[in-house]
Amino acid sequence: MAENAEEIILPREVEEEFTELTRGIEEVLPVHEFRKKLLKAYETRTPLRVKAGFDPTAPDLHLGHTVLIQKLRQFQKFGHRVLFLIGDYTAMIGDPTGKSETRKVLSRREVEENAKTYKEQVFKILDVQKTEIVFNSTWLSSLKLEDILHLTGKYTVARMLERDDFSKRYHDGQPISLVEFMYPLMQGYDSVALKCDVELGGTDQKFNLLVGRDLQSAYGQSTQCVIMTPLLVGLDGVKKMSKSLGNYIGIKEAPGDIYGKLMSISDSLMLDYYTLLSDKSTADLERIKKEIAEGKIHPKKAKADLAFEITARFTSENVAREVAAEWEKIHNPKERGLPHDIPSFSFIPGTELALLLKEAKLAQSNSEARRMVEQNSIYRVDESGNEEVLTDFKMPIREGFILRAGKRKFLRIVPH
Amino acid sequence: MAENAEEIILPREVEEEFTELTRGIEEVLPVHEFRKKLLKAYETRTPLRVKAGFDPTAPDLHLGHTVLIQKLRQFQKFGHRVLFLIGDYTAMIGDPTGKSETRKVLSRREVEENAKTYKEQVFKILDVQKTEIVFNSTWLSSLKLEDILHLTGKYTVARMLERDDFSKRYHDGQPISLVEFMYPLMQGYDSVALKCDVELGGTDQKFNLLVGRDLQSAYGQSTQCVIMTPLLVGLDGVKKMSKSLGNYIGIKEAPGDIYGKLMSISDSLMLDYYTLLSDKSTADLERIKKEIAEGKIHPKKAKADLAFEITARFTSENVAREVAAEWEKIHNPKERGLPHDIPSFSFIPGTELALLLKEAKLAQSNSEARRMVEQNSIYRVDESGNEEVLTDFKMPIREGFILRAGKRKFLRIVPH
Repeated sequence: MAENAEEIILPREVEEEFTELTRGIEEVLPVHEFRKKLLKAYETRTPLRVKAGFDPTAPDLHLGHTVLIQKLRQFQKFGHRVLFLIGDYTAMIGDPTGKSETRKVLSRREVEENAKTYKEQVFKILDVQKTEIVFNSTWLSSLKLEDILHLTGKYTVARMLERDDFSKRYHDGQPISLVEFMYPLMQGYDSVALKCDVELGGTDQKFNLLVGRDLQSAYGQSTQCVIMTPLLVGLDGVKKMSKSLGNYIGIKEAPGDIYGKLMSISDSLMLDYYTLLSDKSTADLERIKKEIAEGKIHPKKAKADLAFEITARFTSENVAREVAAEWEKIHNPKERGLPHDIPSFSFIPGTELALLLKEAKLAQSNSEARRMVEQNSIYRVDESGNEEVLTDFKMPIREGFILRAGKRKFLRIVPH
Repeated sequence: MAENAEEIILPREVEEEFTELTRGIEEVLPVHEFRKKLLKAYETRTPLRVKAGFDPTAPDLHLGHTVLIQKLRQFQKFGHRVLFLIGDYTAMIGDPTGKSETRKVLSRREVEENAKTYKEQVFKILDVQKTEIVFNSTWLSSLKLEDILHLTGKYTVARMLERDDFSKRYHDGQPISLVEFMYPLMQGYDSVALKCDVELGGTDQKFNLLVGRDLQSAYGQSTQCVIMTPLLVGLDGVKKMSKSLGNYIGIKEAPGDIYGKLMSISDSLMLDYYTLLSDKSTADLERIKKEIAEGKIHPKKAKADLAFEITARFTSENVAREVAAEWEKIHNPKERGLPHDIPSFSFIPGTELALLLKEAKLAQSNSEARRMVEQNSIYRVDESGNEEVLTDFKMPIREGFILRAGKRKFLRIVPH
């Protein structure tokens, strides 16, 4: 594949396009074909038709979802056409695929409302002019049994059972409903109906994305390339960003929270976020990395730039400027007589004060933690540097603040 | 199961009905439920809805096909309603199930013509008044993807792969198209659409028939019982009756051929044919068997009765009487001075005379066979007892006749 890919010599600007479009990408299948498609699009001045499918069940996007949308935006910047597919048909049916619990079936009305919310959110990233929002009910709802027999005739049982999760469940004796075999076919048929050149999806979508290729070929179309985006790591720097893990930044969160959460990530995570979320060119990113390494830029400055860019994307530059200034004011230790570098500790909201002290290693044991509280040596420090003594070791802590333990120990506690 | 079945005590006439309806049957699933259904039908005077599905691709029926139709006729005799389902929808699609060659897809017009021929043929057996001819296109053609997702949601991959042929092919690495999984579902859905109480089919249909039960249950209906008819053995007494094996009696054949072929079967095969094809009651059959065993009836007489019954069924009693008389005239040895008991030998049409003599063991070798012909000792005996000497040992023999070899050896040669 790599050798093959090398054979396609691209003009310098198409080579640059290839570099940008594959930046941070997990896998491109097949690379060779993708390079060819880019070249042809360039030579014939015909934009590529780039599809990505979204499930309208969860319209509350977080940054993890925007990795893929950001990639679509890059395609648009190079002149390509984005087919933003809302899987309204499947959502109304309820796909049980790989889920232990049955997914809630949505009404037409709910789907439409969710789709509206989707649009509001994605057009903060995508260019309206170069986006076609399509609903797969348009073609799927009119399919009849005859069409479906035709469709099912294009795929074999054995190939379907090659999908990792199906294979595992089949061999573990766990039931797979036949309807689950229909979903990859439907997703694949979407690509046939839309005559896609490229489909984007997460790595967990690999099988379904490739079914699209197979079906296009079976229907006599040229086949789409498949581009798989990685999962974004959450604020904890370990697990994938997800709402249920609480390590996420919702794009509709308060601007101050978006900015603040981004400022809380580690330096190395910041570089990943730059790669996957920033509009900066790859060349610019390389320069930033180099300057950080050489000590020419403080990582905090780079982080603030990223936090500004992302916050501005979902609000406006003015708002982003305001929240950045606010954040500076709060966090600038010089203004509050606090030490320059206060370490952070992430806790589960609702943790009782004593337990929190122990978990944060400010106390060796529960009894020591209680004693510290009883001896009035634990303080909450507010934004202006005013302090309040905390007297109830059983008090559940829900919000973040700067905590002082004894004379000189400061800890910024951050809800998880 | 057997113990369960015993528990359902039936009134004498329903017990008799059960005996007739299960006569010659390969399997009833579940027996217990079937007995209950018969009882309920009797008590509530509500006829059972008895379905059998037919593929309109081959409207030329032979006796093998009529085993099942004969069973439907028995149901009608007991007052039940027959749903004679013509699988026109599936025929228009072309079911590849278990076939090495792809089945020809029929046009709407062909299906209709075939259906017409079907009706002409089956109403020689079935009672028009108690038969509903139904076409599964009526409900299947209007199914939409949504309905099909609903349907496929009712069945698992693992259960489908339990079907013998699927299981074998899957484990042998032979491809199974997903569309093949759709056919059992469609056949099962037919039972849902028709609210069947009973479905009849061949033993090879067991899996598909049981899918009907499962789907009815999934759609909240009471489940059909499944009755499997055996395959009819062909004229050779060994292999199943089939057109391609040439051991069949087509129901549209000339009456003399139907009668003659039935007269050519062995005595033991005759009893099977009585069981599966005759309208005679089980009690009558037992009596006939007993009288043959005691020498009270000559088997030939019983065979002639059966041949008459079947021939009359597909023509008329008058025609049957005529062909029976004709047959007697030809085959009655007294009128031709031929021995009473001439053995038969079945040959492949086109066999050369000398080879036939050797295969029939009239000659030990090819050279002896040739010598017999050259010595003018081989004769064809015609219906009136007139003889013609056969002089060409290379002559291909295509039709049956009585052959005399030497002075006293007679052999009835019958094309295979």
